[in-house]
Amino acid sequence: MAATAPRFDVVAFDADDTLWHSEDSFHLVEARFTELIGPFAPDGIDVAAALRAMERAQLPIAGYGVKAFTLSMVKAAIAVTDAAVPAAVIGQLVDSGMAMLTETVRLLPQVPEVLAAVAADHRLALITKGDLVHQTRKVTTSGLAHHFDAIEVVLEKDAETYARIIGQLGVEPARFCMVGNSVRSDILPVLSLGAHAVHIPYPLLWEHEHVDHDEDLDELASIAELPARLLQDRF
Amino acid sequence: MAATAPRFDVVAFDADDTLWHSEDSFHLVEARFTELIGPFAPDGIDVAAALRAMERAQLPIAGYGVKAFTLSMVKAAIAVTDAAVPAAVIGQLVDSGMAMLTETVRLLPQVPEVLAAVAADHRLALITKGDLVHQTRKVTTSGLAHHFDAIEVVLEKDAETYARIIGQLGVEPARFCMVGNSVRSDILPVLSLGAHAVHIPYPLLWEHEHVDHDEDLDELASIAELPARLLQDRF
Repeated sequence: MAATAPRFDVVAFDADDTLWHSEDSFHLVEARFTELIGPFAPDGIDVAAALRAMERAQLPIAGYGVKAFTLSMVKAAIAVTDAAVPAAVIGQLVDSGMAMLTETVRLLPQVPEVLAAVAADHRLALITKGDLVHQTRKVTTSGLAHHFDAIEVVLEKDAETYARIIGQLGVEPARFCMVGNSVRSDILPVLSLGAHAVHIPYPLLWEHEHVDHDEDLDELASIAELPARLLQDRF
Repeated sequence: MAATAPRFDVVAFDADDTLWHSEDSFHLVEARFTELIGPFAPDGIDVAAALRAMERAQLPIAGYGVKAFTLSMVKAAIAVTDAAVPAAVIGQLVDSGMAMLTETVRLLPQVPEVLAAVAADHRLALITKGDLVHQTRKVTTSGLAHHFDAIEVVLEKDAETYARIIGQLGVEPARFCMVGNSVRSDILPVLSLGAHAVHIPYPLLWEHEHVDHDEDLDELASIAELPARLLQDRF
């Protein structure tokens, strides 16, 4: 028998690579970094690996997002070339990185329709980590902001952060469902609180988000399947 | 006759240059920029003015905070030297800027005592704009986080933002008091909502925060005077 009432009061969405494309832009800029910096680095230097390591090293200090990534590019470029890179090339790196801040949002297929459908019988929230100004710009310029009762740009998507947000929303964990592409950030910490999470993989995953886990995940191939899944009895 | 009950339910504090020093670090790094970049710029270029203009131009795109400021330094250094600046010098600029992210918090005098005193009969909030990771680091490493019922790192301190926060705190505007050093960000938008604001100037004010106004402000010379002011009848 189909359920007659929604199982959840609040459905919360991750943003980057769940509602809109994000990781592919980082990949393009990383490729540009390798192309621009490679010629100035000695043979035997893996410039792409150095950039990834610099990003990881800066993460606790500079946090997530485009500005931190752009600063990591500058630092890595100077490091791997032993400061032989010309300032004009650094300028190109900075411009490539910062262009992401103003890039037009590219929504994933069906996102507006799905949000409208889910909003018909749930409160919606947006929970994203990263850069306050950039994430805010994306959600407002996308025209999607009106769907969300709460928009939270957070430092880290861990259990403590989700517990705080669930508390602020005034919802029981069992009646909260998170939807996102990262098992590490969107799924496992939510499940640990007794809330539900739906995993929708994106073709690219930032290395930092990789995680090994044993959990059996509730997984969809596309966000377009979400409204039907929310109507299922077993859900 | 003295009031017997507090006039406010919530006292909210700005952070930078209200609880701890901030602007003086930016001034030092700006001076370092001028010192490092001056020798590579042609005569007749005002490098300090170019940096300030770059900061202003980047503000709507990159937002507030140390990472945005550091990226502006890199862009300004390349611009004013026509890319003649060596990469090693750009590296020094980036390191000087990013060092601010991990600088030990330097509290203003009496801040811990004042927060403890005000917290005795008010709920406290912290409302700051800037960088999420940096502001969070400062409030947690300062040991002051436990005083605050809410810690809000916001994109812009305008009336709309304050209205949202006051709503979330569930307090009447007339029972909300904001304390801060910037008339533009901490005082005028709060007064416009019918809430109260106490201005405590800091010796340095970022040019961007300058504002002309006619309002008669409730002003203190030091945060140390706040508990006594909150006890006054006229307040």
